[in-house]
Amino acid sequence: MKINNNERIDDLEYENLKIIQNKEGFCFGIDSVLLSDYAKNIKKDAIVVDIGTGTGIIGLLLCKKAKLKKIYGVEIQEDVAKMAERSIQLNSLEDKFQIINIDINNISDKLDNNSIDVIVTNPPYKKKNTGLLNEEEKKLISRHEIKCTLEDIVKTSYKLLKSKGEFYMVHRAERLVDILYTLRNNKLEPKNIRFVHSKAGEKPKLILIRCVKDAKEYLKIENPLFIYDNNGEYTDEILKIYNKK
Amino acid sequence: MKINNNERIDDLEYENLKIIQNKEGFCFGIDSVLLSDYAKNIKKDAIVVDIGTGTGIIGLLLCKKAKLKKIYGVEIQEDVAKMAERSIQLNSLEDKFQIINIDINNISDKLDNNSIDVIVTNPPYKKKNTGLLNEEEKKLISRHEIKCTLEDIVKTSYKLLKSKGEFYMVHRAERLVDILYTLRNNKLEPKNIRFVHSKAGEKPKLILIRCVKDAKEYLKIENPLFIYDNNGEYTDEILKIYNKK
Repeated sequence: MKINNNERIDDLEYENLKIIQNKEGFCFGIDSVLLSDYAKNIKKDAIVVDIGTGTGIIGLLLCKKAKLKKIYGVEIQEDVAKMAERSIQLNSLEDKFQIINIDINNISDKLDNNSIDVIVTNPPYKKKNTGLLNEEEKKLISRHEIKCTLEDIVKTSYKLLKSKGEFYMVHRAERLVDILYTLRNNKLEPKNIRFVHSKAGEKPKLILIRCVKDAKEYLKIENPLFIYDNNGEYTDEILKIYNKK
Repeated sequence: MKINNNERIDDLEYENLKIIQNKEGFCFGIDSVLLSDYAKNIKKDAIVVDIGTGTGIIGLLLCKKAKLKKIYGVEIQEDVAKMAERSIQLNSLEDKFQIINIDINNISDKLDNNSIDVIVTNPPYKKKNTGLLNEEEKKLISRHEIKCTLEDIVKTSYKLLKSKGEFYMVHRAERLVDILYTLRNNKLEPKNIRFVHSKAGEKPKLILIRCVKDAKEYLKIENPLFIYDNNGEYTDEILKIYNKK
């Protein structure tokens, strides 16, 4: 496997999965790991799309955690898309996981409308034109809504999904109003939300959300997920998600 | 003070406040107490409206907790409105707290648009045509959106409020999508949310929310409020709100 000078191979410590990451680029975080776990019970033989696949972390984990048939990872940045492709080869997952290097706003060129069972996404968290913008270009695209907004993702997902198809997303809790408004407004109805807190007593940092296309309005809020216990150690639930328990 | 046979006087244990409640009707709960505490820092001399005032609990507490100038309690049910009026007299708060017995959809007959600084509301929690409907009529109106929907309240509040006026509400957490969608859609922008949990580790039951009319989009999520600690005792914060600590 060809590894570029600025890259490294990390062991995901999950069913021998390995991942290539750019040392100077955007490396995956706990949010992607939590999302892949949250979405693991999707139906058998599902056709899945990961929007903004980045390193491919969510797709790699879902190939092992879920019984999916096929996952397409859509990534706009060419070098990031190529790196994810090499991670797929490194794990011999070419039959299951395919990268599509395209702007999601043009995804209809590659995938049919109403053809997808499940969408997963860990989108850029920050609003266009907010936050400090002094990082490198590559990290910017992964973190800020430069190339696509939340609304782009939601509208595209609605088109791609079959009727009653599922949409799973991890996002920053403080975008809660934007998220719920945009989802309902575009008929991806939020059905489950789980708030993720660093620890009990602190405000939620992230949300995990499951929506269903054209579903009726009824939300279930799940018990919160805590990353650390009161001693600053990972909680049992996090250890389980990381396969350490 | 005339008390009807089906009524009782309760001591609010807060600055000698007393309240008349109908023993067979809807009695106030912790949600109203939490809301009055959440809204207590409204600006000095504010003109306030409590939509769906019921027993008057929120207004009575706010008269003592906040430095407001005047509060109008809007209540559609005539006998409930009269009972609240008697509670106001019982506490000698006639100068500050006035009941308006009217359907909120007709409130423009009584109050001017763009004239109110702050609105507080503990609205009926259940959607129209949902839930079991075998309770008494009076409780029904207080608990279900029979006489007014969330959208009625939000639209009316928008009209009554001055520019940048504040809207405080307590509601069931599971209505989160309806709430945030309806608020943003009607330009009462959610600025602060606090989730209320029975205890740490359990899903949130209630939300406390503060919105500002025509404000820019930016949400602050506050630390969660727990009612009970792990031993099943009230938390210090709840004891403080109830003036027991």
